[in-house]
Formats: sequence, C-alpha cells, structure tokens
Amino acid sequence: MDYAARRDRALAAIDAAELDALLVTRMTNIRYLTGFSGSTGLLVLGAEPALVVDFRYRSQAQRQVEGLPLRIVDSVFQLWPELERALLVGAHKRIGFDGDHLSATRYLALAAHDGPRWQQAAGLVERLRACKDAAELAALRQAMAITDGAWEDALGALRPGVTELHCSGQIELFQRDRGGEKAASDILVSSGPRTALPHGTPTERELAAGEPVMTDLGAVVDGYLGDLTRTVHLGPAPDDFRELYAIVLEAQQQALDALAPGKRGCDVDAVARGVIADAGHGERFGHSLGHAIGLDNHEAPLLSPFNETVLEPGMVTTVEPGIYVPGRGGVRIEDTVVVTETGYENLTSSRKELIEL
Amino acid sequence: MDYAARRDRALAAIDAAELDALLVTRMTNIRYLTGFSGSTGLLVLGAEPALVVDFRYRSQAQRQVEGLPLRIVDSVFQLWPELERALLVGAHKRIGFDGDHLSATRYLALAAHDGPRWQQAAGLVERLRACKDAAELAALRQAMAITDGAWEDALGALRPGVTELHCSGQIELFQRDRGGEKAASDILVSSGPRTALPHGTPTERELAAGEPVMTDLGAVVDGYLGDLTRTVHLGPAPDDFRELYAIVLEAQQQALDALAPGKRGCDVDAVARGVIADAGHGERFGHSLGHAIGLDNHEAPLLSPFNETVLEPGMVTTVEPGIYVPGRGGVRIEDTVVVTETGYENLTSSRKELIEL
Repeated sequence: MDYAARRDRALAAIDAAELDALLVTRMTNIRYLTGFSGSTGLLVLGAEPALVVDFRYRSQAQRQVEGLPLRIVDSVFQLWPELERALLVGAHKRIGFDGDHLSATRYLALAAHDGPRWQQAAGLVERLRACKDAAELAALRQAMAITDGAWEDALGALRPGVTELHCSGQIELFQRDRGGEKAASDILVSSGPRTALPHGTPTERELAAGEPVMTDLGAVVDGYLGDLTRTVHLGPAPDDFRELYAIVLEAQQQALDALAPGKRGCDVDAVARGVIADAGHGERFGHSLGHAIGLDNHEAPLLSPFNETVLEPGMVTTVEPGIYVPGRGGVRIEDTVVVTETGYENLTSSRKELIEL
Repeated sequence: MDYAARRDRALAAIDAAELDALLVTRMTNIRYLTGFSGSTGLLVLGAEPALVVDFRYRSQAQRQVEGLPLRIVDSVFQLWPELERALLVGAHKRIGFDGDHLSATRYLALAAHDGPRWQQAAGLVERLRACKDAAELAALRQAMAITDGAWEDALGALRPGVTELHCSGQIELFQRDRGGEKAASDILVSSGPRTALPHGTPTERELAAGEPVMTDLGAVVDGYLGDLTRTVHLGPAPDDFRELYAIVLEAQQQALDALAPGKRGCDVDAVARGVIADAGHGERFGHSLGHAIGLDNHEAPLLSPFNETVLEPGMVTTVEPGIYVPGRGGVRIEDTVVVTETGYENLTSSRKELIEL
C-alpha cells in the first residue's frame, strides 16, 4: 500500500484546514497512514512528523513503517510524554486533534499547554479513507472470499441439536482455516424466534428443525474487514417465512440496482425501505440499510434515512435490509459491495436464493 | 448481583466527591451498576437518575434493570440529546464525568452548557469495582473453569502441521462448546521463535516438532473474563527450554506466595522480577507481572514496578511472569487468582509442570 501518497493527501488536508500539524490517535487511521498495525501508538503529521511506539513494537514498526521518523519509548507510560515532546515544537502552532478518538482526560492535559492553538479535526483522515484504493480493494476482496468460503463451510455445520454458540465457534475456526486473521466483529448466530433480534448474540440455544437461522460473519485480511449475513431455514420453510425472505431479497436487489455515484446514502436507503414498507413491514426494519466498511467495521458514509453524503466510486458499503417480527423471527440478507463508475460491483459471492437445510 | 447496593456505594462516593450527579459512559461501569449488558447506553446517577438506551434494547433493559428510571429513545442518534435532558436538570449543579471514557468531542459539547460545573471523576466507579463481591467471584470462577477446560481440550489439538490460526480457532470453539459467551480477548497462539513475542497474534505458521507453543486464552461468563497462559513443548524439550521454564515457574510461585492484603502491586512484581533477574534474564521480562481483571481485561491495580496500590481481599489479578529471548523463543505462565484475607486463592486449575506433547 502506498502510505507516502496517503500522507501527502493528509498533509494537503491539514494545510487546507489551516493547521500546522495533526495529532492522529485512532489506530486504524495510523495504520492507514503508516502501515503500522500495532495496538498502541501515536502519530504526528506536520512539519516535524513522528510515529511514537513503545518497545514492544520496535521491530514491527521498523519493518512496517518507511519514510517517517520513529520514536521508540521504553514503556507504554512514556508514549504521551514522548508525544508531547514531538508535538509541542516551535513549528506546530495550530494543532488539529481527533476529538472523536481522544479522551477528555488527554484533551484537557494537552489543552493545558498554552503554546499551540488546539483545533477540532475529527473526521479529517476518515474522509480520506472513504474511497478505497486498489490495494485496499484487493484486501477487501480477499476478506470477502474467505468470508464466503467460511459461510459455505458453515452450511455443512448448521443442523438441529447444535447450539448457536457452537456454530459461532465453528465459523471462527472455518474463517481462520481459510487464512482470516480473526473475526471482523462478534460472529452472530441466532435461531428460531431469536432471529427477530437485529443483533443476535449467540447463546446455548439449540438449533431446531422447522426454524430459521440468521448468521452474520466476516473475516479480516491485512486489517480489512468482510461482512456477510445470510438467513437460512432448517427443513422446509413455511409460506410466511418464504414471503418475508422474498421481500427482503427484493428490497436488497432494488437497493443494489440503485447504487451509483451521485446518489446519496439516504436515496439508496429509501429504495429498500420503500419495498419493505409497501409490503406492510415498514415498522419492522429498524436499522440503516448499510454502512461503509474497511479497516473499521462501521465507517462513514451510512446508507441511512438521514445521511446525505453523495456516493463516489471506490466507496465500499454493506447493503443489508432486514425484517424483524418480535416473537416470531426475522430475515436479513447482507452483501458487501463497492461503488463503481457506473453502479456497483458485488464483493460477495454467496448465493442468495432461499436455502432449506 | 445486587445492583442497588452497588449504586448506593456509588452514591456515597459521588457525595464524598462533592458532586450532585455522575455521568457514567463506560459500558462495563454501566453494567456493574445496573446489570444492563447492551453495547450502547448512558447512565446518570444522582438526584434524578436515569438509564438512557435506544429502542433496540427496550426489552433487554426492561428485563435486566430494576429500580432505575429507563429512558428509551427511538434512535441511537437521540441518546446524547436525551442524556442532556436527563442530566441538565436543576438538581444537578456539579456533575462528574469519566474523562477516560468520554471523547473530547462529547466533553466539549457538554462543557458548552454553562449551567452546571463539570468535574473530572475518572476512576470513581473503577475503585468500587476493584474488590469483587461474591456474585462476581462466582462468575470469574466459572469463566476460569471453562477456560481451564478449553485448555485441556486444546492440549489434544496442538500438534505438528496445524497452523497457529487453526489452534486459535479451535480454542474459540472449545470455549463456546463449554458455555463461554465469547473470547475474553484475542486468543493468542505463537510457536517456535514467535514465542519471543509477548503478544503472539496467531499466523498461518505451522506448529512443528521440537518447538515451544505459547497460548493465551480466556472465556467470558456473565461478562466476567478469564485469563490463562501456558507454554508447552512439542516433543522432548531441550535443556535451555527446560531451564527457562523452571525459572518462570519459580518466579510465578514466589510471586503467588507473596500475594497478601497489605502488599503493594510493586512489591509482588518485584518478587517475580527478582527471580528472573537473578537467573540472568532481567532484560527479557518487559511487561508487568499482572493486571486486575473482571468485566474488563485490564483493570486496576496492576502488579507492576510502578504501582503502589495496596492489595485488598477480593481483588482478582493475573500473575504472569515471562521471559522472551529475541530470535529464540519464550515462556510465559499465567494464572488468575483472588486475594484473600490470608493470601490468595488460585482460580486456575490447569497444571503447570512442563508438558511435552
């Protein structure tokens, strides 16, 4: 990945915001700008750039980071003091901070230094990250290929009598056996009436014949996250489930067809929401249609009723309509796609016709 | 768990800090004080207490929370506006905030309300959480029982030719099959020279005969986390590995024997560090001896060279000395224990003699 080019774009944005330096505190932003994938570190971009890490990450940072001075401290407790030494130099008079990823305690300590002017710069790096470059798309493609493969494996493991927790553990194993670094987020498996929960954390409930199973999974490759949801039925599906499934699938397909540069997030959300409302389930789709995804699981922009961000080629987003009927059950179908010059490309290959196991 | 009693203790601490109200923003603090286990929510304790959650958690919050007014909003975007309505009432003139778990952006928005006086109150709830009550100890015991069981299962799965990632996935599955909710943190599996990394994230490297394997695992029960590390050898261990192992085991045993109320974290750390330094490996134990654990993975107090907190009965801590020889490999042995009136009780039952598989 071309980290130097990304830092050049960040420097242009820092300049446009009339800042002398930017303090980067979100680890995924640091990874995006430097390649450093450790769990802890601090980055200064500006006239006197520096990446501050502790001794645990010495060899890793030296291997991963090029073209940026490294400051390595002996203890994690020395990170902030060293950051202040790097940041509070004469050249940095106006310093941007990411208030969304800086604690109030740290902010108050920084602001007590009365040399520089501190300026809120939340979202500056995230805006650069919105459109994925070719290397990022390659990682996302691979993350989705592993996720799709693990789902194919999972279809052989979902059967009456096994617990939701067991299935989630199996999927963890399937993803890793295909080379996924870890789960992109908690693997969700819910069954029966529990599929009415949009966020179905697995429990010791046993899957049973004659019930739906909803599974939300995702593998990680080079830090980039896959995201996939499928809902299947154990045994022949009754008509009411078939009907729900068909509505959700139609809502998703129409939303996918509506994806294109120039559309706003809310426009695409409205397409799926309209299909579901027209079918009489308007109150049963209580979340956004989708979220952008990359190094983080929920990135901007959202495909939501309130998001007016205009879509651009290279944005990667989930498209995941759902209908949840309290006490009965639900259906969600989720793909991860990239916006292209002319529409979209689906990074997901898992089939979507109703599966009865 | 007796949440009302915990809130009474919190109210006394709020009063002692001369506050009218406390804004609780860390989810594990909210869980500790209310029982609510959702991923998002805000709590006000004081003259006008309230738990603010969004519609997704309506039934969960109603089921889990007693004796506290619930305010349920229609969207996650309404949480903070509703919190401000609950917080900025006449009765709350001096409001404490947890600056360690509140973003600078949120803090600046709150502080722009010029009615109340805002006061840093980081750590107030964490201090209440330091000594675990009987219900917490029961959950921790069960978490460690599942963790120990999964490790016993894992001993049957560690063999030449399987990848580190596969082993970590197997352990995810073993823990869930024994009823663990999920992994307490990323399951670490490292092998061969990679055992020299204190934080050995699993890779596609294959385990090999004649090499050590280090595994750091932990299950979750009712939100409480287990933590266990063992280092084994595939095939007969050479003398240099045996020697390292014996030193680390001796350091751990002496540190455990030193645990008692009245000792400081640094005193116990010094015992293990002394054993390792005396054996000539002082520079190769680059982390703290241990960390408290409960609803969070790294709680205060630390058993570290710099921590002067005096230990008390009911504190639960890991004891995990390690020696890491760059390019060669390492050994870490970790138990989770509770400080008692007279010393400690080990919550860990996994055997510690050197295992050659």
